[in-house]
Amino acid sequence: MKVLTGIDEFRGARSSLGGSLGFVPTMGYLHEGHLSLIRKARGDCSHVVVSIFVNPTQFGLNEDLSKYPRDLKRDLDLIQPLGADIVWTPTPEIMYPGGFQTWVEVERLTQGLEGTMRPGHFKGVATVVAKLFNVVQPHKAYFGQKDAQQAAVIRQMARDLNFPLEVVVCPTVREADGLAMSSRNKYLDAEERKAAVVLFRALSAAKSAFDAGERNAEKLRQIVRNILAAEPHAKTQYVSCADYDTLEELELIKGNTLLSMAVMLGKTRLIDNFVIGP
Amino acid sequence: MKVLTGIDEFRGARSSLGGSLGFVPTMGYLHEGHLSLIRKARGDCSHVVVSIFVNPTQFGLNEDLSKYPRDLKRDLDLIQPLGADIVWTPTPEIMYPGGFQTWVEVERLTQGLEGTMRPGHFKGVATVVAKLFNVVQPHKAYFGQKDAQQAAVIRQMARDLNFPLEVVVCPTVREADGLAMSSRNKYLDAEERKAAVVLFRALSAAKSAFDAGERNAEKLRQIVRNILAAEPHAKTQYVSCADYDTLEELELIKGNTLLSMAVMLGKTRLIDNFVIGP
Repeated sequence: MKVLTGIDEFRGARSSLGGSLGFVPTMGYLHEGHLSLIRKARGDCSHVVVSIFVNPTQFGLNEDLSKYPRDLKRDLDLIQPLGADIVWTPTPEIMYPGGFQTWVEVERLTQGLEGTMRPGHFKGVATVVAKLFNVVQPHKAYFGQKDAQQAAVIRQMARDLNFPLEVVVCPTVREADGLAMSSRNKYLDAEERKAAVVLFRALSAAKSAFDAGERNAEKLRQIVRNILAAEPHAKTQYVSCADYDTLEELELIKGNTLLSMAVMLGKTRLIDNFVIGP
Repeated sequence: MKVLTGIDEFRGARSSLGGSLGFVPTMGYLHEGHLSLIRKARGDCSHVVVSIFVNPTQFGLNEDLSKYPRDLKRDLDLIQPLGADIVWTPTPEIMYPGGFQTWVEVERLTQGLEGTMRPGHFKGVATVVAKLFNVVQPHKAYFGQKDAQQAAVIRQMARDLNFPLEVVVCPTVREADGLAMSSRNKYLDAEERKAAVVLFRALSAAKSAFDAGERNAEKLRQIVRNILAAEPHAKTQYVSCADYDTLEELELIKGNTLLSMAVMLGKTRLIDNFVIGP
């Protein structure tokens, strides 16, 4: 497994990888969710590239860029046994050299949900992913369903800009009690960690109502809101029941639907979602 | 020479072209300027792709999209003898299908000059060129120096987004009297056509002053403005003397410099430029 930093260096190594290439872009501090993407890529493709880059342009001014957890040694130890060919670890200076001024923006999909709470976030995400795609030149790129709006934005960008690759979205990996895996779970103290299961409980309750025949989107949102409101450590930012592809809020559920939320647990912001559908 | 319309169809044919690929993106109604780009690509690369697409997103609401000259038969007859492998002629529906919402924007370079006169123009240019690059996957892409700001914007975009290709900018091709070739020259009536040589005369006069030692940028602009003002058919939109790479207006000329202008001849908008330097 090669660990490379520079773009030219990476491209040199990339050019010797024949056959299909699977790509897993990450911000490091890997958890089982990331590892499941790497395993999927390993199963699908001849070769696998993992990138580790904490992308500064997708963090807001008041967000956790400087304290975002980083541990390259730990990450490499986790990736090694999975059989990745190259781990690419560019620096901010390599990705955003002096004079950088080009941005990729996906318009409508980025307006609501995370886009409302985190202005500029998806501009940073779309731009860095376009750059990563152009350097890595993968045939398939793997993203987690946990970041559902991000997955939708990247699918749309890849389609609109004609990137010659397939965006593969993989299921959310959860802890034993249902909490979605996230590098940010590390911020939670013991009590918050216990309370954090409320996201999964709320989604599960709404899913049960859906399975029992409920198709009124507002009723499902209300089920989620009520369960979140009953947890004193949790402060709800939004609850959404939206079309899976357009992310437009629904009145009545007909097709694939994204039930999602953002919740503050103390100072830690958590998101989670279920995809429900006919 | 294959003439193809669909993206999948194009990609199928593209995948059988081994070796290096040169790409000449055009809006059709080809003139000797375009042909010089195709000849250069033919000399540099194993294979050549020419695209013909009048890109609607780079035209303003009051611009000439609907009357922009189109003649595919004539274009193909001009390309055929030059030995291009594929001519790709996508439609607006293929390039901008329903739900399209992703844009590429180059920030600072697009603020002045054409960017001021044609709001949104370079957003359309950068977006369509990113799309074309992703479909065609060239090793080298050829653009004319006549559209100097466009060339600067595309160079910057290719660098910032890490497109794995070289942007090659080729000299402006001129009529016998010095008028820069342009598909829009066709709009000029006989008197305007005669008057249009004033752009070249003004640039030549400023170049002479530069060659004689003048390094004050405002003096060079003034030489251009005065000559344009003396031509009754010409109405100056802007005259610029700017850094070649950043397009920032200069006081004193030190390095590579773009001397450029936009002029209305009747209802026809013409641009031209010289690159002058140390």
